[in-house]
Amino acid sequence: MLSERALEGYRGTALQLLRKFDVKPGQLVEVVTTDRLAQRGLIIPRYLHADEEHIVLKLKSGYNVGIKVSTIESMKSVEETTPVRSVATSRESIGSRLSDKKRLLLISTGGTIASRVDYRTGAVFPILSASDLYAAVPELDRLAVIEPEVVFSVTSENLTPKDWNVLSTKIAELSQQRRPDGIVIMMGTDTLGYTAAALSFSLIGFEIPIVIVGAQRSSDRPSSDAALNLRSAAFFALECKRPGVYVAMHRSENDTEIAIHSGTRVRKNHTSRRDAFESIDYPLVATVINATEIKWNGDSTNPRSHATNYRLKFNFESKVALVKFHPGFDSSVLTYLVEEQGVDGLIIEGTGLGHVSDGTVSVISDLSKEAKFIGITSQCIWGHVDLNVYGPGRDLIAAGAVPLENMIPETAFAKLSWVLGNFPDNIREMMLKNVVGEFNPRILLSEPGGKEN
Amino acid sequence: MLSERALEGYRGTALQLLRKFDVKPGQLVEVVTTDRLAQRGLIIPRYLHADEEHIVLKLKSGYNVGIKVSTIESMKSVEETTPVRSVATSRESIGSRLSDKKRLLLISTGGTIASRVDYRTGAVFPILSASDLYAAVPELDRLAVIEPEVVFSVTSENLTPKDWNVLSTKIAELSQQRRPDGIVIMMGTDTLGYTAAALSFSLIGFEIPIVIVGAQRSSDRPSSDAALNLRSAAFFALECKRPGVYVAMHRSENDTEIAIHSGTRVRKNHTSRRDAFESIDYPLVATVINATEIKWNGDSTNPRSHATNYRLKFNFESKVALVKFHPGFDSSVLTYLVEEQGVDGLIIEGTGLGHVSDGTVSVISDLSKEAKFIGITSQCIWGHVDLNVYGPGRDLIAAGAVPLENMIPETAFAKLSWVLGNFPDNIREMMLKNVVGEFNPRILLSEPGGKEN
Repeated sequence: MLSERALEGYRGTALQLLRKFDVKPGQLVEVVTTDRLAQRGLIIPRYLHADEEHIVLKLKSGYNVGIKVSTIESMKSVEETTPVRSVATSRESIGSRLSDKKRLLLISTGGTIASRVDYRTGAVFPILSASDLYAAVPELDRLAVIEPEVVFSVTSENLTPKDWNVLSTKIAELSQQRRPDGIVIMMGTDTLGYTAAALSFSLIGFEIPIVIVGAQRSSDRPSSDAALNLRSAAFFALECKRPGVYVAMHRSENDTEIAIHSGTRVRKNHTSRRDAFESIDYPLVATVINATEIKWNGDSTNPRSHATNYRLKFNFESKVALVKFHPGFDSSVLTYLVEEQGVDGLIIEGTGLGHVSDGTVSVISDLSKEAKFIGITSQCIWGHVDLNVYGPGRDLIAAGAVPLENMIPETAFAKLSWVLGNFPDNIREMMLKNVVGEFNPRILLSEPGGKEN
Repeated sequence: MLSERALEGYRGTALQLLRKFDVKPGQLVEVVTTDRLAQRGLIIPRYLHADEEHIVLKLKSGYNVGIKVSTIESMKSVEETTPVRSVATSRESIGSRLSDKKRLLLISTGGTIASRVDYRTGAVFPILSASDLYAAVPELDRLAVIEPEVVFSVTSENLTPKDWNVLSTKIAELSQQRRPDGIVIMMGTDTLGYTAAALSFSLIGFEIPIVIVGAQRSSDRPSSDAALNLRSAAFFALECKRPGVYVAMHRSENDTEIAIHSGTRVRKNHTSRRDAFESIDYPLVATVINATEIKWNGDSTNPRSHATNYRLKFNFESKVALVKFHPGFDSSVLTYLVEEQGVDGLIIEGTGLGHVSDGTVSVISDLSKEAKFIGITSQCIWGHVDLNVYGPGRDLIAAGAVPLENMIPETAFAKLSWVLGNFPDNIREMMLKNVVGEFNPRILLSEPGGKEN
C-alpha cells in the first residue's frame, strides 16, 4: 500500500487507479489504454486543484501528457533501460564533456519555469543552484553545452529596477567568463515584459542574442508550456545570429509555434493562457516551429538598432513611478510621489490619445519644475498618443508633459528608469529618441479612410 | 478672391483648387472627377493637420467623402434644391411633427461626437443646446422623433463619479417626462468604457435600452465614424427590445458593421482606430449592419440580468482609487490614499493572476482594517485573477484583499464606486456578486490542454 504522501495531488478515481496498479508519482511506467496504445513515462504529481480524471506522464521528449483514467487498461512500473543522465556538479564537468557543441548560458531568476517538481515526493520547489537547474533541463543537452547559473530565485512581481541592474551586470560578467553563443533567461511571467524592456536598454550593443522565457503553467501539469518554450528559446538564442533582447512564449494554444517578440514591444495580455504575450503595434520578430526551425518575419540579419553609443549602461533609477489616470483621479498622488517620496520621473497612463483631467494638468504644470521628467502614454495600450488633436492635450504639453508616441506604458517606465540612471543630462532627448525600436515614428493618419498601424 | 479665414484648414494644392473654381467651405458644390462621376455635397473644413491632397464633401447621407485633388476636373457651386430642414427650437415643436414615430431620447455629454462643424466659418465647437444637437443629426429624422438634451458639454477625461450620479439621475428624470422608446448617449470615447460600466450598475432594471456612442474621428474628417456610429446606435436603441446598457462603435475599419458591446465588458484598446473598442472575455452582444439590421450574437430576448433588487441606485462614492502595480512600486501610495486622502475603496491592478510584491502585501494587510474594500484585478486585462495558484497570492488574500475574477479594472473601479455609494453594509458581498454580467464565474482549467475562455 502506498502512503498518502507519495500520492500527493492525486485523489478520487485517479488515486484509486494508482493504488490498483500499485504505482506512484516518480516511477517510470508503461500505460496501456483502451485504444491499445502503450505510453512510457514518469508519473508526475498533480497540482493542488487538479481534477481526478487524469494521470499525468512526463515523456522522454520533455512533454507532459494527461491520460484519462477511464481509458487506462493497465499500468506497470518498468525499469529505466537507458543510462540515467548524471547531474553535473561543477561548471567544468558540464562544459568539458561536449566541447564541440555551441554553448548556452542558461540563467534562472525564478518563477514558474524555474520550479522543479520532485517526482519522488511530489513537492514543487524553486531551483536554487546551478546543478539543480542543469538537472531540470535534460532536453537541452542535444542542443548545446549548458552553462547553468542561478542569479535570483524570486517570483517576478518582486523584481525591482535595482534587480535589473544586478541582472544586467551579471549577464555581462558571466558572458565574459563563459563565452556563450547565446543566452536564455528563465523568469516569472508577471513582470517579464517590464524586464525584457529594461534589458533591451541596458544591454544595447551586446554581441549575442538574449532570449527571455517563462511558463504560464508549471511542469507538473499536462498543459505545461515550460518544455517547448525553453527548447524554442534555446534554439533561437543559438541559431538566430542577430543580437538583441527577445521574448519567447507560445504563439497560440497549440504546442507547435513559439513567438519571438521584440523585448521593447511585448506585453502579458492574459492572466493564464499559454499565448498570453503579445507584441504591441509591432510584428513578431520570428516564429520558432517545433523548436527546430526559425521562420523570420522580415529581415533576419540586421539588428534593429546600431545605437552603440548607449551600450552596456546598467544603472536603473528606482525613483520612478508609473501611474494610471482614471475618472475622478486624485492628482495629489503625483504631488505626494514627487514632493514626499522624491520621485524624479513619472510615466502617466492617460486616457485615449493621452488625456488627463484639467485638474491633473494643473498639478503636472506645478510638478514639471520639480520632477526631472513627466511622460505621457496611453492606457489604451495600442496606438500612438497625440496631444495635438484637442485643446486639453495641447494644455498638457504646455504644462511640461512629454507625449511618448506609442511606447507601451511598461516599456516607457523601464526606459525612464534607465535614462535617469545613465543619462541625467539628456533625459528628454533620450526619452524622445528611438534607441532600440521601442516606438514607431508616428504615421500621420492618411485620408480618406486613414488607418494607423 | 476668397479670404484666408473662409478657407481655413485647406492649404497647398487643395487651397489652389478651391481658389481656381472660386468655391469655399460651407458651399454646396458639384464636383466632377476624371472618371466622369459627379458628386454633390457641402465642402467641409479640414482639421489642422490634414494633408493637402483632398477636398472633403459632406454628402446628403451624412457621410463625408475625401476626393483627391489630382482627380478633380471641375467644381461648381450649386443651389440647394430640396427644402432646407428647419431647426426646431423647442421640444414640443420637434415632437409634434411626427407623433406616430418612435421616440428617441438623445443625450449629449460632450466629446468628439458632440462637436459641431460650422460649415460657414470652418470652426469646430461643442454642442451646447438641445436645438444645436437636433440640428446636428438630420440623419436621425427618418428613424424617430428625436428628443434632444444636452446634459454636459465636457471632454470625457473630465467626467467623474459625481457626474455618473448626475447623468443617471437625469436619464431617469428625462425618461419619465418624455417616455422614449430608446436612449442614445453621445460621449467622448476616452472614459466611455468607465461610464458604460457605471451606468450599467446605476441603471439596473431600467425598462428601455440605453446605447452609449462616441466617435474616434471628428465629423470634419472624411474618415469620421460619427455618422454611422450614431445612426447604428439609434437604430439599435429603438429596435433591440432588450433593456440594458450598451456601447455602439465601429467593429472594424470598414463602414458597415457597428459592434454592440455589453456595458460592463468593453474597453478602449486603441488610441485612434475607429474600431478601438473591444469586448473583453465576452462575446459581442450584436452587430448592426449598415445601420438597418441587427445581427444578434445569441439570445436576443432575455436581458442578461434580472437583479431588480438593485435597480436605480444612483449614488457613486468618489473616495475610490484605481492603482496599477509595477516593479519597484512604492506601496506607501496606498497608505497615502487611505490615511491622508480618506479613500474608502481601492482597486489594484496586480500583475499576472493578480500578484503584487511582498512589500505591497504587507501594506495591504495594514490598510485592510482601515479601507472598506481592497479589490484585486489584473493589468493583463484579459483573463481571471486567481490568488490560489501561488503562495504569494494566498498571502494577499490573507492580507484582506479580494480577487475580482475577470472584471476589467475599469469596471471594477466603477462598480466599487457604486457599491460604496449604495450598499455600505454589503460591500464584499456585492463586489463578489455578478449583478449585471460584469464577470464570468471562473472555469477551472480543464486538463489536458486546458483553455480558459
